[in-house]
Amino acid sequence: MYDITVIMNSSTSKTEIKIAYIGGGSRCWALNLIGDLVLSTQLTGSLVLHDIDHEAAQYNVRLADVIFAHPAAATRFSVSAEQSLGRALKGADFVVISIEPGPTQLRHADLEIPARHGILQTVGDTTGPGGILRALRCIPTYRGFARAIMEHCPKAWVINYTNPMAVCTATLYREAPGIKAFGCCHEVFGTQQKLARLINDWFKTGLPERNEIELDIAGVNHFTWATRAHWRGRDLLPLLRDMVNDEKFFANRRAEAETAAAEQRWFDHHFLVACDLLRRFGFLGAAGDRHLAEFVPWYLGSEAELHRWGVVLTPYSWRLQRSQEPRPTANDQKDLLPSGEEGVQQIEALLGLRPLTTNVNLPNLGQMPGFPEHAVVETYAEFRRDNLRPLLAGPLPEGAACLVKRAVSEHLLTLDAGFDNNPHAAFQALLNHPLMRLPTDQALIMFSEMLNATADYLEQPEKWRRFAG
Amino acid sequence: MYDITVIMNSSTSKTEIKIAYIGGGSRCWALNLIGDLVLSTQLTGSLVLHDIDHEAAQYNVRLADVIFAHPAAATRFSVSAEQSLGRALKGADFVVISIEPGPTQLRHADLEIPARHGILQTVGDTTGPGGILRALRCIPTYRGFARAIMEHCPKAWVINYTNPMAVCTATLYREAPGIKAFGCCHEVFGTQQKLARLINDWFKTGLPERNEIELDIAGVNHFTWATRAHWRGRDLLPLLRDMVNDEKFFANRRAEAETAAAEQRWFDHHFLVACDLLRRFGFLGAAGDRHLAEFVPWYLGSEAELHRWGVVLTPYSWRLQRSQEPRPTANDQKDLLPSGEEGVQQIEALLGLRPLTTNVNLPNLGQMPGFPEHAVVETYAEFRRDNLRPLLAGPLPEGAACLVKRAVSEHLLTLDAGFDNNPHAAFQALLNHPLMRLPTDQALIMFSEMLNATADYLEQPEKWRRFAG
Amino acid sequence: MYDITVIMNSSTSKTEIKIAYIGGGSRCWALNLIGDLVLSTQLTGSLVLHDIDHEAAQYNVRLADVIFAHPAAATRFSVSAEQSLGRALKGADFVVISIEPGPTQLRHADLEIPARHGILQTVGDTTGPGGILRALRCIPTYRGFARAIMEHCPKAWVINYTNPMAVCTATLYREAPGIKAFGCCHEVFGTQQKLARLINDWFKTGLPERNEIELDIAGVNHFTWATRAHWRGRDLLPLLRDMVNDEKFFANRRAEAETAAAEQRWFDHHFLVACDLLRRFGFLGAAGDRHLAEFVPWYLGSEAELHRWGVVLTPYSWRLQRSQEPRPTANDQKDLLPSGEEGVQQIEALLGLRPLTTNVNLPNLGQMPGFPEHAVVETYAEFRRDNLRPLLAGPLPEGAACLVKRAVSEHLLTLDAGFDNNPHAAFQALLNHPLMRLPTDQALIMFSEMLNATADYLEQPEKWRRFAG
Amino acid sequence: MYDITVIMNSSTSKTEIKIAYIGGGSRCWALNLIGDLVLSTQLTGSLVLHDIDHEAAQYNVRLADVIFAHPAAATRFSVSAEQSLGRALKGADFVVISIEPGPTQLRHADLEIPARHGILQTVGDTTGPGGILRALRCIPTYRGFARAIMEHCPKAWVINYTNPMAVCTATLYREAPGIKAFGCCHEVFGTQQKLARLINDWFKTGLPERNEIELDIAGVNHFTWATRAHWRGRDLLPLLRDMVNDEKFFANRRAEAETAAAEQRWFDHHFLVACDLLRRFGFLGAAGDRHLAEFVPWYLGSEAELHRWGVVLTPYSWRLQRSQEPRPTANDQKDLLPSGEEGVQQIEALLGLRPLTTNVNLPNLGQMPGFPEHAVVETYAEFRRDNLRPLLAGPLPEGAACLVKRAVSEHLLTLDAGFDNNPHAAFQALLNHPLMRLPTDQALIMFSEMLNATADYLEQPEKWRRFAG
Repeated sequence: MYDITVIMNSSTSKTEIKIAYIGGGSRCWALNLIGDLVLSTQLTGSLVLHDIDHEAAQYNVRLADVIFAHPAAATRFSVSAEQSLGRALKGADFVVISIEPGPTQLRHADLEIPARHGILQTVGDTTGPGGILRALRCIPTYRGFARAIMEHCPKAWVINYTNPMAVCTATLYREAPGIKAFGCCHEVFGTQQKLARLINDWFKTGLPERNEIELDIAGVNHFTWATRAHWRGRDLLPLLRDMVNDEKFFANRRAEAETAAAEQRWFDHHFLVACDLLRRFGFLGAAGDRHLAEFVPWYLGSEAELHRWGVVLTPYSWRLQRSQEPRPTANDQKDLLPSGEEGVQQIEALLGLRPLTTNVNLPNLGQMPGFPEHAVVETYAEFRRDNLRPLLAGPLPEGAACLVKRAVSEHLLTLDAGFDNNPHAAFQALLNHPLMRLPTDQALIMFSEMLNATADYLEQPEKWRRFAG
Repeated sequence: MYDITVIMNSSTSKTEIKIAYIGGGSRCWALNLIGDLVLSTQLTGSLVLHDIDHEAAQYNVRLADVIFAHPAAATRFSVSAEQSLGRALKGADFVVISIEPGPTQLRHADLEIPARHGILQTVGDTTGPGGILRALRCIPTYRGFARAIMEHCPKAWVINYTNPMAVCTATLYREAPGIKAFGCCHEVFGTQQKLARLINDWFKTGLPERNEIELDIAGVNHFTWATRAHWRGRDLLPLLRDMVNDEKFFANRRAEAETAAAEQRWFDHHFLVACDLLRRFGFLGAAGDRHLAEFVPWYLGSEAELHRWGVVLTPYSWRLQRSQEPRPTANDQKDLLPSGEEGVQQIEALLGLRPLTTNVNLPNLGQMPGFPEHAVVETYAEFRRDNLRPLLAGPLPEGAACLVKRAVSEHLLTLDAGFDNNPHAAFQALLNHPLMRLPTDQALIMFSEMLNATADYLEQPEKWRRFAG
Repeated sequence: MYDITVIMNSSTSKTEIKIAYIGGGSRCWALNLIGDLVLSTQLTGSLVLHDIDHEAAQYNVRLADVIFAHPAAATRFSVSAEQSLGRALKGADFVVISIEPGPTQLRHADLEIPARHGILQTVGDTTGPGGILRALRCIPTYRGFARAIMEHCPKAWVINYTNPMAVCTATLYREAPGIKAFGCCHEVFGTQQKLARLINDWFKTGLPERNEIELDIAGVNHFTWATRAHWRGRDLLPLLRDMVNDEKFFANRRAEAETAAAEQRWFDHHFLVACDLLRRFGFLGAAGDRHLAEFVPWYLGSEAELHRWGVVLTPYSWRLQRSQEPRPTANDQKDLLPSGEEGVQQIEALLGLRPLTTNVNLPNLGQMPGFPEHAVVETYAEFRRDNLRPLLAGPLPEGAACLVKRAVSEHLLTLDAGFDNNPHAAFQALLNHPLMRLPTDQALIMFSEMLNATADYLEQPEKWRRFAG
Repeated sequence: MYDITVIMNSSTSKTEIKIAYIGGGSRCWALNLIGDLVLSTQLTGSLVLHDIDHEAAQYNVRLADVIFAHPAAATRFSVSAEQSLGRALKGADFVVISIEPGPTQLRHADLEIPARHGILQTVGDTTGPGGILRALRCIPTYRGFARAIMEHCPKAWVINYTNPMAVCTATLYREAPGIKAFGCCHEVFGTQQKLARLINDWFKTGLPERNEIELDIAGVNHFTWATRAHWRGRDLLPLLRDMVNDEKFFANRRAEAETAAAEQRWFDHHFLVACDLLRRFGFLGAAGDRHLAEFVPWYLGSEAELHRWGVVLTPYSWRLQRSQEPRPTANDQKDLLPSGEEGVQQIEALLGLRPLTTNVNLPNLGQMPGFPEHAVVETYAEFRRDNLRPLLAGPLPEGAACLVKRAVSEHLLTLDAGFDNNPHAAFQALLNHPLMRLPTDQALIMFSEMLNATADYLEQPEKWRRFAG
């Protein structure tokens, strides 16, 4: 596309593109994208949904047809489901990926086995035992995606939503260094929204748009740090520091947490972990507390300790149950509202149709000085026509950088493990994780149980099983 | 300022700032800034002109008063001249610097002494014998500026226009690592304008705005390279490569050059050097040919050779004469037209009043991977409120990178020479320059003559004279 | 010295040097040095003992006189005690430092306060709570040493024996970048000796000299790793890997440990931690188990867990008692036996009198690629005349490198804390330590108790006390 | 070998090895190695000579048989010629390579074509037009060697003697990253010998052994710099600096040069270029003047200029004539004298039979900080059993480093050109060379003539010819 299409900027014409969606049967991300596409005044074309659960993709096609037929639709896309990955990708201008690596039942191994050994995880899809195991399942799949993209649409831009974000994105690049891929995550948006609410509290100005809060960020996905925060000429960090210097801010939230757990509000949190990082390390954790807590050893010592910080564990049972609930129907889509995600804006910006600077996950080529080259990091980047240029992140101070570098090392070891089918590297990633404090032999027992439960989804399962003993 | 002022974004109010202008008697840059300020709908406040030639500053104050009284003026600034540097800087929000390091007569040593030894220079203010000598004169002065800024307005943003850009900007940072300075240059704009004219030739679309031509750039000031060039979805580099593959494009321009010289059109050029770099190294030189030619050994072997490429030497005699011409009068300022420079936009963007991404000179903190840390390089950067974040430059291929790294080494050696009053380092910078091909002993004779002619403007003149023998 | 003395290599003459010993009242290291000097056939001159406990230095002078009067003495040194640090250093060719930072009672804060909070430490002088606190006490003292050395004997070589080795050595360089200092430690010798015993077991060849075991090492002091191990053409790592693959090798050593504790054999160990690192990370820990265990989270969970690995805690009570025991007398020095330390050989090698390649602690200038520049690391180095050239360490694989980089970060934060009197940085070093698993607020309580107990030995004690609350 | 053979160190037994010699028909290097092997008291085994000129290899076998039959021979090697490269390499413990890339007539293109365009070269086998062209011929051949070694003797140590040293050695590593290769050169020995003669002049001590002169070196082959020089406690650099500060030292040597040329003493030189580098850049050039002069623009402007420095051009005609002279006969080998080369000592040291630290060419893994990773650089290295560990080179100051980095860039571009058959990269290497000052179009004409004359010895000759036009 990028060499030949002349984009017409006139307001009456639309740019025609093909989007291939891998994991197009997804309940959430695929529908978000469709819901945002229908509001685009600049795009039209085709959207091809590919999913190993072809029926789910077909179901989403029917939903999409209803949505694009909505009287308020700003555009039309031709939506179809396609069982062949190659055909889905053929000629695509953009590829979006959001998949679940294996059935939800595999999350049992990610979450419940560690819990039985005393290792608690709030999410377990990014880092730690669950994150590593899930990454091992993703790597062979993503290597296949990378090869298929390079064969069928090597010039397409690839947007990844799957967790573990850093490892999935890095897999694409390690398998296909010439790929044009990046990973997107809304956790930083959440930090902006939280700051917007605080601004309203402090200045009674009404709730600002999240985009008005200007951050500098640096880190890895789900463990990003805000090293600057401004709003309309005000530096927010001193205000936040004042807030966290008041001990009352960190009052025990056990009661709230227990209520939240009872009411199945798993995603509630009180910004306390993000702010404890600010208090201890000088800069604000810029992701949800559920994610931040998994990268450090201080909050997940016990469920009671976690509740003290106002965070609750998302139980495996609920995840399983939700995966078995009926899918949304077209009736759920009454109003056309933007999802809050940025995929469509990113597509428009890569087509040269609008300016955009936002946070993305990309291999480090210098944007995070002092961090390993090619490790996937999360920073701001400027979207240009067929071009994505990271902004140099402000320096992360040594205390925080040390924690993030450990996470980067986990990614590198996990990638080595997945690419070489090397269980030793994966086990080293696990041993070095701050949530792990079992003796090495007990850690091996735990990891072996996890591997045995998931080996069928890895390449060379027998090799992993042999290691697991 | 940055911590306290609340900027009102309402369309009816203006942000009030203080700008201190060092070199405020300048004929060109100071008037450009004034001419752009008067058109700003967002700024107001005071502009203080400081110059060692106080009369020149006073003269410009009178001009400014006329300009701000123009019926089409969009704003008012209170303009004054101030003899004390400290008072000029006190409380400034922005500092602009454009100076001449010493009287124009010193350019004789920069240009005529080398010429007598067979070393021709088209400009001689950035690199090579003249660039190095001029840099040596600038360094003590800029160290003084840096100290004064840190004393009187440490939070101000400092915009440098003086050449040699890289060394002047680096001097500010080496003297005051906490300074918030950057250097600006319009040479890349010229490349965009040239491409705009070619686009009009190729597509008959009318002349596009230069901002529509989207470049990726990397390099050092006056020796920047465009590694991408797009316009409305078209990749311009293949079109340029076709153009330069036609031998006729490089037809001998001696006649045109001789005419230009006769008519004193020193700045004329035909884009041939920029395009020869494209032909030989794969990417486009993104500065005027007069500048590019000084960084490499191929075009300045003789005046005839230079003319073949359509470039002429700017003679010292003309420079001297121009410096003695009467100053512009208020009558020259009939219409209020933007200068084409970006200083006012940069100020507005640093105040959070508009978005801006443009090319600037900044210490390398990772934006040019593989180049020495802290060397001042020229790349794009995103201007944010009180924050300037370089964009990671695309990789410069080895052939071009080698040439740029030599220039960076010249800067480092010159800075060492100037900070330590170390003539050996300056002489090494000179010996390693591609225009130098004299035996080392003859080079020393030439450099000694240059030093003797300029030593009074250096710190520890006797040390430099002793080296010169 | 280095520029003028002509060294006579003839066997009948000796090189005359001055050695200044800071901490010259020490019971152990000073006497080791004296005991090795007396055996040198190449050195003579003067040894000046400086100690804040001047009587202890004087005591050692008397011991030294007896030793140098021994009939088997190979040389004579004139030994004296000197109360003024400046006079002790004046004109020294070599400076040796081995000090205790404050009275032994301060070790209570290093060891007992953490233990009360559940944090066990086997040694507590290198890393973790005790290591950090001890480092904070050392930094002001070592800054003073560095300044005194640069004033009185700037060309002297400085040999450091004090722990924490990395921070002490780094302090010298941060305070005086031109200093010629290195740190020495015998832990790697212990690994060679252990391997020598295994070689004898395996091949029945008799016990080889430790020098015959050729290692490649990389890491930081007390957390070095052997990435190669050869003896007479045999690669020892495969043999060790076979050994550790036998589960019986790691049989529970609780009984042995309890016996050792009962018999006050605190330094006993069974090489199990070093070998567990080999088993898990592929390369051998090259320091005693007591040290290795403190850098990772797996062995010090409880005293019972530690005993399982055959290691015992060295109790504070014993340390205190030993510091109050009577000093050795001349009668204890009946035979002149080498200490096994290498200080005298290093001195000889730096004088050009013998070849030597051994392990030393030096700022990283490239010998450990991928590790921060200037961090003090432990690798092999070749000693030459007035010149110490590190050998490039073989690559440390990611799993082990991640652990070592965390330790390097601890050093950097501790140095920042000590140089800037910044308790936040010290607390971050502590929070990031793998032995710490307390919630951050409890960790702060513990650290505050430690700081209050030791603040008198820090610069700006009130600043530290204010942080401690 | 390295895993299984137990080396017997007893004085009566010898270690048995197989050496494969690629280029075994060579007149010089192969005979040097044989002449040194016969003196080894520690080695025995077999030496297999492989050469595309099989008769030459067979001739050398006969010479070797005579040499090993010499009554003073310390050992016996079984020497044979082998036409199959694979069979020659099979099971080798060491591989030595010294080849001529194509017939001597090709040197015409290396030397005479540039000369016709005004570009003079003293040697033309390392850098500049001749060095680049010769490198292009070597790369395909060396890629083949690397593949054959990895197939037939992947654990062998490979010693390269062929020029261009850096590119040949780098080719082995780029083709086979796991290879154990290094390059050797005696130019640094020549610097030591020159210093030995000066020491005798200065101190009248008799001529010291070259090994007594202890250097620190850094650079690339034939453009190494000595940053320290000591002899028995004396720092030689100040003495050298005094010497070069006397202008008479640099008196015009035209007469001597003309006599040398007339008498065909091409290799004569007066150390003037090495010392001019010392005078200008602070450190001593550590290679012969003929080599040093080719890396910089100052000495080869004309033959008269070169003669002024006492250096003469080695004419192509003599090279051709020498290649056609009769080979040495066994009668030429009357006495068994060491060659002065170090190959046999290196082999012994890699077998663990002796200590050795010497200068070698190896990929940069950190031993030259600030230089590109993996570029082949020349520094000291410590030889250990089956292990070669570079010593960290002392820092090269910016002025000299800039010149060396240009040479490294030439290597990288030439390697890219040879591996990818990319004439543009080769031409960029040429354009950036300091001896080149032709306009780019004339340079292209020259390079095209060179390529047309040598294309048959490159891969894809038609691609190179097409570029040459």
